[in-house]
Amino acid sequence: TALKLGMIPADGIGKEVLPAAQRVLEALGSSIPKTTFIPLQAGWEEFNRNGKALPDETVKILKEECDGAMFGSVSSPSHKVAGYSSPIVALRKHLDLYANVRPVSSVSIPNQKSYHQCDMVIVRENTECLYIKKEEISTNPDGSKKAIAYRQITSNASSRIGKMAFEIALRRGAEREAARKAGKEVWWNGEPKVTIVHKSNVLSVTDGLFRESVRAVKEGTDRYNGVKMEEQLVDSMVYRMFREPEIFDVAVAPNLYGDIISDGAAALVGSLGLVPSINAGDDFVMGEPVHGSAPDIEGQNIANPIASIRSAALLLSSLGYVEPASRINAAVDTVLAEGEYLTPDLGGKSSTTDVTDAVLKRL
Amino acid sequence: TALKLGMIPADGIGKEVLPAAQRVLEALGSSIPKTTFIPLQAGWEEFNRNGKALPDETVKILKEECDGAMFGSVSSPSHKVAGYSSPIVALRKHLDLYANVRPVSSVSIPNQKSYHQCDMVIVRENTECLYIKKEEISTNPDGSKKAIAYRQITSNASSRIGKMAFEIALRRGAEREAARKAGKEVWWNGEPKVTIVHKSNVLSVTDGLFRESVRAVKEGTDRYNGVKMEEQLVDSMVYRMFREPEIFDVAVAPNLYGDIISDGAAALVGSLGLVPSINAGDDFVMGEPVHGSAPDIEGQNIANPIASIRSAALLLSSLGYVEPASRINAAVDTVLAEGEYLTPDLGGKSSTTDVTDAVLKRL
Ligand SMILES: CC(C)[C@H](C(=O)O)[C@@H](O)C(=O)O
Ligand SMILES: CC(C)[C@H](C(=O)O)[C@@H](O)C(=O)O
Repeated sequence: TALKLGMIPADGIGKEVLPAAQRVLEALGSSIPKTTFIPLQAGWEEFNRNGKALPDETVKILKEECDGAMFGSVSSPSHKVAGYSSPIVALRKHLDLYANVRPVSSVSIPNQKSYHQCDMVIVRENTECLYIKKEEISTNPDGSKKAIAYRQITSNASSRIGKMAFEIALRRGAEREAARKAGKEVWWNGEPKVTIVHKSNVLSVTDGLFRESVRAVKEGTDRYNGVKMEEQLVDSMVYRMFREPEIFDVAVAPNLYGDIISDGAAALVGSLGLVPSINAGDDFVMGEPVHGSAPDIEGQNIANPIASIRSAALLLSSLGYVEPASRINAAVDTVLAEGEYLTPDLGGKSSTTDVTDAVLKRL
Repeated sequence: TALKLGMIPADGIGKEVLPAAQRVLEALGSSIPKTTFIPLQAGWEEFNRNGKALPDETVKILKEECDGAMFGSVSSPSHKVAGYSSPIVALRKHLDLYANVRPVSSVSIPNQKSYHQCDMVIVRENTECLYIKKEEISTNPDGSKKAIAYRQITSNASSRIGKMAFEIALRRGAEREAARKAGKEVWWNGEPKVTIVHKSNVLSVTDGLFRESVRAVKEGTDRYNGVKMEEQLVDSMVYRMFREPEIFDVAVAPNLYGDIISDGAAALVGSLGLVPSINAGDDFVMGEPVHGSAPDIEGQNIANPIASIRSAALLLSSLGYVEPASRINAAVDTVLAEGEYLTPDLGGKSSTTDVTDAVLKRL
């Protein structure tokens, strides 16, 4: 079999880190099926060129031809631009990539303070909440304006993201168990745990529904008996994450809270440039570094390629190529632990290319 | 003249920290007008006693008799309880306390790591956004559920919170200037700055309106020429706050983002137990510690009273009693700097009463 991957660099440093990930995938040689990379367009720059942030062609090729995809990062205008709408939000919807899975774990880099031990996965609902982008605005007779956005939470979307979270918690528990048996050091000794993040003290109906739907996932089966379930209000979650991130295993959250806490978690491990994600549905997976398009450093070859490379590893592993994915992750960890090739976000002086070369060498 | 202050301890540790603040206010003696404290009811416990989380009587007395108030903290059920609605959210609305002003600054406590220099004020819009609590739920024929919450942003509410933020930035700039002239060390050398926090890349209509309305406050006058204006997406704001909180001066945000980032900021300075706030309108001000009701430590006399004491100082100062307010803050700073009387949240072993006594002694 052969593999076809859609590659959507989009804007800014997406155009630098996605090729880095592609080089790493190419270097895997025969340990993965022969892979074709299909370059696809989307983004703010594409909108300015051709009037569409997400060309139909891109969606069509992804759906009909690709086994998976990698997305770079998008720039967005901060004001409303007629006809423009975030292509990443649209892609998640079109391909029903209902989960955004973001593993965040602390790395040991020489000479870098690392605040806390942290090894968590944020499972972000990816299709609804305020991201349905249903908004209205009206003007009062006195010229003042009133705008409304709709925040949608459904039991179906909440259940399936809850299920995803519990499955990930189970798998992590099993992996830790296996590692322990193999004599490796595993710092988390407790049972697997899912923390439900919400704000049901204010949003008793919508977040109440999210909370109940996720709770029902565990309560409806014996399968998750070994997984603990806890809750945190989103404000308290941000507070706790910064005080004692080591207490979290898997966190599951509605879309916007998930967005916010994953950026917060990224700060804990030193840089957004390290944090990968996959947008996952039942039929399709798209890797995406958590960082943005960073126009301030675009074109300088200094963007950290690691988030993108790790996203490629996540993509591979969810396509079933677990061993080559581990090889990528091990190579990245080695590069970080050596501390010789680091981009400026990590206090280093290396270029995107240098770091990618270093990873390739250690594959 | 005499002063009448409504005292609403509400739930949990609110009942321990509010009396602490009252003791400090009482100790000011003749440096403030003769003050009467009127105990008032509200909260989850009150709801369970008398069926109303916010008795009409409480609102009436606050409106008709009081010059200001202090609020403790509320517990909330995490599920929807018929007839219950958060009394603090309702109070903010009833008294039109449209701004929640939360100063967060790092303190030097002996033997405590302090990550970063940080001295910022979060100005949180307090009346709208998802806090209008308009929510609906419907059940589909297949039994699945769909809930909608309405998020409201108006130009009027956004402008007035923007104005508040720019006024605070101006005042802080002037205070720093004065301190510098008096030979005191002031670490922030730049011009005053307001950072607008939003998510207009997704919520282009509602957050677009918030952003534009706040920007228009500066652009419509020469008064704020000396105040810089910047923007941060809320996810990026959380990230930046943890990486380099020292770059922020005043941040202004819609209600929910303000809630989240102020808890995040509290983590930066070591404890939620240190962070005060006022809920401020044009006619009324209510002090409120940022922490919650903390049922896990209720009744043990170990809650940190400092957030509440500092909230009382903020209240005094906004009622025009600036000098006694400074005395309170100075006494608190001394107690922290001595590091002898600290509650457990700060790694100490002192009780609520010990810390309060210590502050009283240094007044
Ligand atoms: C670019 C933006 C629309 C996006 C989001 O909010 O989902 C980004 O912040 C992310 O986390 O992928
Ligand atoms: C208790 C809750 C309703 C409240 C809020 O979200 O405003 C609290 O978190 C706060 O910050 O005062």
